[in-house]
Amino acid sequence: MHILITGGAGIVGARLARSLLARGTLAGQRLERVVLADQAPPPDDLAADGRVEAMVGPLLGQCEALRERAFDGVFHLASAVSGECELDFDLGMRSNLDSTRALLEALRARSAAAATPPRVVFSSSIAVFGPDPAVPLPAVCADDTLPAPQTSYGTQKLICEHLIADYTRKGFIDGRAARLVTVTVRPGRPNGAASSFFSGIVREPLAGEEAVLPVDPGVAHPVSSPQRTVEGLIAVFEASREAFGGRTALNLPALNVTVQQMLDALQAVAGPRVRARVVPRRDERIAGIVANWPRAVVGARAARLGLRPEASFEDIIRQYIDDCRRSAPEALRGLEQHT
Amino acid sequence: MHILITGGAGIVGARLARSLLARGTLAGQRLERVVLADQAPPPDDLAADGRVEAMVGPLLGQCEALRERAFDGVFHLASAVSGECELDFDLGMRSNLDSTRALLEALRARSAAAATPPRVVFSSSIAVFGPDPAVPLPAVCADDTLPAPQTSYGTQKLICEHLIADYTRKGFIDGRAARLVTVTVRPGRPNGAASSFFSGIVREPLAGEEAVLPVDPGVAHPVSSPQRTVEGLIAVFEASREAFGGRTALNLPALNVTVQQMLDALQAVAGPRVRARVVPRRDERIAGIVANWPRAVVGARAARLGLRPEASFEDIIRQYIDDCRRSAPEALRGLEQHT
Repeated sequence: MHILITGGAGIVGARLARSLLARGTLAGQRLERVVLADQAPPPDDLAADGRVEAMVGPLLGQCEALRERAFDGVFHLASAVSGECELDFDLGMRSNLDSTRALLEALRARSAAAATPPRVVFSSSIAVFGPDPAVPLPAVCADDTLPAPQTSYGTQKLICEHLIADYTRKGFIDGRAARLVTVTVRPGRPNGAASSFFSGIVREPLAGEEAVLPVDPGVAHPVSSPQRTVEGLIAVFEASREAFGGRTALNLPALNVTVQQMLDALQAVAGPRVRARVVPRRDERIAGIVANWPRAVVGARAARLGLRPEASFEDIIRQYIDDCRRSAPEALRGLEQHT
Repeated sequence: MHILITGGAGIVGARLARSLLARGTLAGQRLERVVLADQAPPPDDLAADGRVEAMVGPLLGQCEALRERAFDGVFHLASAVSGECELDFDLGMRSNLDSTRALLEALRARSAAAATPPRVVFSSSIAVFGPDPAVPLPAVCADDTLPAPQTSYGTQKLICEHLIADYTRKGFIDGRAARLVTVTVRPGRPNGAASSFFSGIVREPLAGEEAVLPVDPGVAHPVSSPQRTVEGLIAVFEASREAFGGRTALNLPALNVTVQQMLDALQAVAGPRVRARVVPRRDERIAGIVANWPRAVVGARAARLGLRPEASFEDIIRQYIDDCRRSAPEALRGLEQHT
């Protein structure tokens, strides 16, 4: 089986690649090749795996070459993030909409000659949901809540959901769109996403650094760990079309928490000195974007695929700490006094 | 006031142009220029009006030139129709998606230098609604029914609704998307739309010709006359943003009828000999597309703008007959024995 992961060097993409390579199979077939397309080269451990091939560069420029390749499966995760799409409209349209269209055209060109179209999992986002004067945001967003995106990022994700659905209806691909909730705790550095602080307020204090909290602690938000997110993407890939249930996008499982609960969990797991490194400093731009995001999400279709959210935010923090102990102990510099 | 109507030589576009020119004002401002962009030249009566300018050619190729023009208002009606988009996927993507994006970019380029962005009414379609295994189609589709398009045409219209909304949010345009229901009775010849027969079964018998009914008489469908459709587009243009209510698309008013009711109305207005010219001959392709369309639509937001559907299908037939008496009496050849 030949698999393409766009955004394959990112947090979710690299973790997905590791999971797939460790399993050695996907949908019952042996994994022969995993192509990681990304603007950045893959992490060393992935690059060292003989089954991995890296394609480094902007996705839009890679799609011509991708026309010549046959893939049995694609995880399309590459995306410009919410914050940068708000700051640079053209960047978002190019990176999220044009690139997805070019990828879909590459897959279509190839699938015309194949017995079965490639299976494609598209990582959409709960940023498709938002409050509109004509459509108030419900307290909990379900799979079939009417999307009304309040950012260009959310608009582009929603448009791609519908492209995936129509390419699937036409038989060009076998596509499934899954809406990711905010993935936390992300390792590494802050990125341009407006949601970046949802990781920063845990990651930075654990590393002994100050973290800015740009929103009110009462803000509620749906989150998921990197591992649960990857498990969700794989389950969506492996589901039969009947089990996936239609061509509309589904919500991946979410742990719905407030920022206050996240901070309390940090204190419970890592102690008050770590917790005290989170400094409230309101950022109107970030707060404005986040205010238009769903406060809670439920994934009934994902649950029918056997997917569940984490039980608590403590579990999510512990997963991050375990990850760091294995691969990046320096990211826990701030934790040493406590454990 | 300078107005652009794309699809301005079509049934709805030309009628809209006539209505605007007859009023002489729009949104309280004097109409100075009406540019009709269309693949076909405008009808003679419009071409003869000194305020009218024709731009003939594919919209996609006109957008560079449109960048140099300042418009206060745009009615974007140009579109490839449902049937041809199903037969030729690339045509639909180019005519409906790429052209709309190019038009929006042209308006954005110009609006950057203007005090207020141009007001834009986009003609979407109730073809955005459809049944999906995960999202059954409700008995009546409301403004906030979750769209799940079952055609490429519906998908492209839905995508454009969201582009219009995001360009509006960003301040590039002041856009409003209005979902047209099936416009009937359309004068002229059948077109490539799967809905073409909804006009044909009235128009052809009145002209003394046989008309094929490709679906079951029990099929229910939302329709509107050309005149009510034009009135709806103008009202949406003239509404304040608050009255329009948000950035999501609204449904224009619909008269929800069955084909049987349409045939009964034809008999009531034009007599049994005219009615007898409708010949049932099922077309699986057409019937399959229509089966995935909404059976009824309600437009609560349009009603708040003062818009109402026709009271009966008889009224719609009478409007068509009156139109023909004025401008195309030969289209009523089949009626002479009865009236």
